[in-house]
Amino acid sequence: MGCMRRVAFAELQERIERVLVGLGLGAERAALSARLTAETDRDGVRTHGVARLPRFAQGVRDGVIVPDAEPRCVAKFGAIERWTGGRGPGNLAAYAAMQRAMEIAKEQGLGCVALADTSHWMRAGTYGWQATEEGFAAMCWTNTMPNLPPWGAKSAALGNNPLVVAIPNETQPIVLDMAMSQFSYGTLASYRARGAALPVPGGYDEQGLLTTDAAAIERTQRALPVGFWKGSGLSFVLDVLAAMLSGGIATHQLPADPAKEVGLSQVFLAIAPESLNTMEEMNRLVQGAIDGVHAATPIEAGKPARYPGEATLHTREESLRDGVAVEDAAWDAFVKLESSCGSARTAGV
Amino acid sequence: MGCMRRVAFAELQERIERVLVGLGLGAERAALSARLTAETDRDGVRTHGVARLPRFAQGVRDGVIVPDAEPRCVAKFGAIERWTGGRGPGNLAAYAAMQRAMEIAKEQGLGCVALADTSHWMRAGTYGWQATEEGFAAMCWTNTMPNLPPWGAKSAALGNNPLVVAIPNETQPIVLDMAMSQFSYGTLASYRARGAALPVPGGYDEQGLLTTDAAAIERTQRALPVGFWKGSGLSFVLDVLAAMLSGGIATHQLPADPAKEVGLSQVFLAIAPESLNTMEEMNRLVQGAIDGVHAATPIEAGKPARYPGEATLHTREESLRDGVAVEDAAWDAFVKLESSCGSARTAGV
Repeated sequence: MGCMRRVAFAELQERIERVLVGLGLGAERAALSARLTAETDRDGVRTHGVARLPRFAQGVRDGVIVPDAEPRCVAKFGAIERWTGGRGPGNLAAYAAMQRAMEIAKEQGLGCVALADTSHWMRAGTYGWQATEEGFAAMCWTNTMPNLPPWGAKSAALGNNPLVVAIPNETQPIVLDMAMSQFSYGTLASYRARGAALPVPGGYDEQGLLTTDAAAIERTQRALPVGFWKGSGLSFVLDVLAAMLSGGIATHQLPADPAKEVGLSQVFLAIAPESLNTMEEMNRLVQGAIDGVHAATPIEAGKPARYPGEATLHTREESLRDGVAVEDAAWDAFVKLESSCGSARTAGV
Repeated sequence: MGCMRRVAFAELQERIERVLVGLGLGAERAALSARLTAETDRDGVRTHGVARLPRFAQGVRDGVIVPDAEPRCVAKFGAIERWTGGRGPGNLAAYAAMQRAMEIAKEQGLGCVALADTSHWMRAGTYGWQATEEGFAAMCWTNTMPNLPPWGAKSAALGNNPLVVAIPNETQPIVLDMAMSQFSYGTLASYRARGAALPVPGGYDEQGLLTTDAAAIERTQRALPVGFWKGSGLSFVLDVLAAMLSGGIATHQLPADPAKEVGLSQVFLAIAPESLNTMEEMNRLVQGAIDGVHAATPIEAGKPARYPGEATLHTREESLRDGVAVEDAAWDAFVKLESSCGSARTAGV
């Protein structure tokens, strides 16, 4: 890991908010987007929080992202609604979509919002945590530009299409947040930057061999789908389903350029488990399942297996106590962004 | 592959049907279950068709599976229903659950049936094909007994929990059917039986090293989750969600014994894409996505990447033309089962 500093959560959120106002987001929208971004770093997902803001700002300045576009419903049928993001900030559109899916689920047991023409939603897991905080289970996913070769091919034709599954309970929500590549490009960049080998093979090198060298994979752009042919297939169906339900476009129609990655299709499915269970039943079920995983014989003595989201709660606690850890390079880029947005704090203010 | 024979589809279905009647299934239920089983072999999923019938018969004889138990609804809220399988034949309960989910989806856009206390559903993909044949998209999954170590552990505490995602269109339905282990135990057995190495590492040997030796993985019972920690996490959330929605039990509560693997929890989610798309729009979208995958530069010249379900349609065509391929060992076991059920054909009948 590069050198890190710690920034108080409230300060981080406030400073992001000012940057977003500087980029043209209205006050309330800037506040929400800043909270979601700061929470991403708070939870330790450093690849998708403040580190992504310069790219977001560039998108706004290039006219690729429309800062004041509001997501809106364009069609509905029963418990499904189709929304468009209007190429606005992706985290705000995704948050609104999940919020609406939960409203439908409150009435119908489950609700689905399919969102077309949106921009990068930053941390996928954000919308899973959002659901569990309101007591809902959820699944959501996004397509992305082509950045993953299908199994059997060496040019990118699939997205890495992150999938989130979230399960509520009172003390320890479960949130799975997984991209369909073994490692996201953000994670590859972070391993490359600190010169570390990947823990398992993550893609192919120039010789066409599986490698743990992140830089080699960045060069070939041949990331490995999770589980070889299986993740390749799962990525494909998530993409087609997102485009079909949202009426939006599929990965093969998206420009293979991160600076122009807008027009994404996403699905938000909320389920109201309290329509069928008491909170006590849910807590008991979740606790039993967690205990089952913790009881499995660990490979390394004293290091029990973990459930999805478990590490997050530890990191969150630490961030709120000691400050949010931000890598120096990401912080320097953010401070530069503050100046360019005219949002840098002047002395004494 | 072991030695194979080809059996006409109609003959296969008829002979399975007679066996099932011999085991105590009513005529109509035996006919449906026989069709689903024969279709599994027809589609080339030999691990989960006629090869599993001896185990099903043993379950009935041991009183573990109740042949005449009918699945039924026990609770509902909006577009979600909770059903129980009553420990009846798992493929019949799953088929009924998906059928009901589609009925709900016809009214509500999407419908969910969560099924508790059921038995092994045989081929997971069956219920995806069922949905696409009626023009529905679907997701469904099951939990299983503990048969997969969580990432970081060496004893089984997760199921391999197959997940299905299915997308309809007029000519080439897309059906993904994936267990959360890199290989199912059925597939491992089949590689072991023919003495072949797995194409990629599928689990750990006695030395704790990743291996392509199927027999070694059967001995250690340390199968590898798809994508290491990612499939481990996905397996966990699918299990908890299935138990929570169905009111049934989770993997850690299931006996780790294939002969007693009943009480499973499953989720069937159907989506009516025609509520939002014309069939023409869906066909165009699917064709574009398939063309995108086929256009990716293949690793081996002339062997383009494939989409989930593509190989199935080829195999199906071949089976209907030349007869269904059945491994000799599976066939011999089936013929033995026929005798024991008194369903063997007598000469001239």
